[in-house]
Amino acid sequence: MAAVTGPKVVVIGAGTGTFTILTALKYYARDITAIVNMSDDGGSTGILRDELGALPPGDVRQCLVALSESDQKLRDLFNYRFDEGTFGGHSFGNIFLSALEKTTGSFADAVKTAGEILNISGHVVPVTLSNVKLVLTKASGEVVKGEYQIVGHDFDSNRPQLSLEPNAQLNPEAKTAIEAADIVVIAPGNLYTSLAPTLIVSGMSEALAKTRAKLVYISNLVTKPGQTDGFKVDDYVREIERFIGSKTVDYVIYNSHKPSDELLRRYAKAGEFAVEFDPEAFKKHHAQAIGEDLVSAAIPQLKPSEQLIPRTLIRHDSDKVARLIMRVYFS
Amino acid sequence: MAAVTGPKVVVIGAGTGTFTILTALKYYARDITAIVNMSDDGGSTGILRDELGALPPGDVRQCLVALSESDQKLRDLFNYRFDEGTFGGHSFGNIFLSALEKTTGSFADAVKTAGEILNISGHVVPVTLSNVKLVLTKASGEVVKGEYQIVGHDFDSNRPQLSLEPNAQLNPEAKTAIEAADIVVIAPGNLYTSLAPTLIVSGMSEALAKTRAKLVYISNLVTKPGQTDGFKVDDYVREIERFIGSKTVDYVIYNSHKPSDELLRRYAKAGEFAVEFDPEAFKKHHAQAIGEDLVSAAIPQLKPSEQLIPRTLIRHDSDKVARLIMRVYFS
Repeated sequence: MAAVTGPKVVVIGAGTGTFTILTALKYYARDITAIVNMSDDGGSTGILRDELGALPPGDVRQCLVALSESDQKLRDLFNYRFDEGTFGGHSFGNIFLSALEKTTGSFADAVKTAGEILNISGHVVPVTLSNVKLVLTKASGEVVKGEYQIVGHDFDSNRPQLSLEPNAQLNPEAKTAIEAADIVVIAPGNLYTSLAPTLIVSGMSEALAKTRAKLVYISNLVTKPGQTDGFKVDDYVREIERFIGSKTVDYVIYNSHKPSDELLRRYAKAGEFAVEFDPEAFKKHHAQAIGEDLVSAAIPQLKPSEQLIPRTLIRHDSDKVARLIMRVYFS
Repeated sequence: MAAVTGPKVVVIGAGTGTFTILTALKYYARDITAIVNMSDDGGSTGILRDELGALPPGDVRQCLVALSESDQKLRDLFNYRFDEGTFGGHSFGNIFLSALEKTTGSFADAVKTAGEILNISGHVVPVTLSNVKLVLTKASGEVVKGEYQIVGHDFDSNRPQLSLEPNAQLNPEAKTAIEAADIVVIAPGNLYTSLAPTLIVSGMSEALAKTRAKLVYISNLVTKPGQTDGFKVDDYVREIERFIGSKTVDYVIYNSHKPSDELLRRYAKAGEFAVEFDPEAFKKHHAQAIGEDLVSAAIPQLKPSEQLIPRTLIRHDSDKVARLIMRVYFS
């Protein structure tokens, strides 16, 4: 009898969306590989890249913490953000990864060593080990460089051209994990600044074409102003498939629960709207759509400074999503 | 039969001197408690104290690394010093301890948790958990505050008055360790800015008076200009005993090997001279003096920036000193 390993799950994405998926998924699957966006260049991460020539630690850190089996003290430490002085605004975990990159001599080693220290279940793998910038080429011909610049940008097209500079090669560990996977999950996240830069890495398309894994996309809950205005579930899937190129999505998990009018009004003020599912429009896709109530009922513990940011209120329920992913695996 | 624990060893001191003692001593004794100076306020440590209100991490960090059984990667990380950007000059281990102090809510907890992460053998115990400054009152009446200020100060007396502000209480864990010890070692280090602030903490004198441990002092190798000019081994012992007050030293381990003329010339240029042993002058002390060649033959691996600092060349041999400490224990 072959050794039992349970499902081999790959989760592709960036920061908070991937953190949410991993947090519950680790209780249902042991062999998880998080393949993480490497184009972040804002905030604490951006400063560490600029000043130390470090690779971007922020998204990797969140995935490490999500998969950590260590006690709360260590996870709190990694997520701690200094609020004053020289270190103000810096996440401790980011500093940790950048220092470890310096002492081990490679970001890949740093991520592995941090994974050992945090006693993670599964693996965290940077999608590429190239030092890359995300580049947007607008319909007007204007070029915008850097994820942080692009995040806040108003696109003049809903099919923006994105590329990485210099050309980034898929990390061989990511390739191996994708090819061996039973299920590949594309996590929720900013479509153009978190998912696209992960999917357009050279070699990703080929690896996804080669794997026999079921490809599952978890749709976002709300649109992003200036970038995905008016997007329905099928628009997200269309764009995801455009970036992948070689393979269509097998399953789409989307939220079918309409948030309260009060919440929607608060989001609308920020130009954000609930992502809707249009069965007619979706018919053109190969994917099977699974709509359920995915919104977290938990009232988030917010700092006073965060209480005016409405988008922290409509969030994925980590466990509901993980259960649906596992249902797809077993179907 | 009672459980075998081997000797209970306490080492009192600050940074590099204590690091040197602990590095080899851990191979001869398992139950080691390093009791660490908490008055450092210079460099990376000083900035973390000023900006974050943190307790001084630097000396504690060195002791944690010395006792760590973790692999070299983790020890390198803790000792890593950023050399550029926002973090330039900061030791990663210092940032680690200060962040942990913030997330655990106490420096004592931070040191314990860091000890677990670094898998230390033995214990590292801050001599006090009070947030203190070292204060020098000169013969002229002038008052100098802060260890960093005092380190570079020319004393106008060879029996300077030192105190801590506010009054610092001995950490109860340090008290317990001293009272239960078989041997208490006062490590080499700056007499007035590393050892004195540790010995004058309220309760230290009483704990040393109460313990049945043998009290061993490891004499410095060279004098410090402006502070211990002309000091011989007996002068150091006299001052150590003045700070302790309640108890005399039982054994003094000193270096009897004369460094090369070439080395002595280089030290002399910096105003530093080899500490000599005067048998006649020493007779007034109760202590038994043990003189051996304690100088390390290893050629230190120096960064280019350190190669002009002569005091990195005449150093204690960690293992020679540890063996002498153990010989005293078994005598």
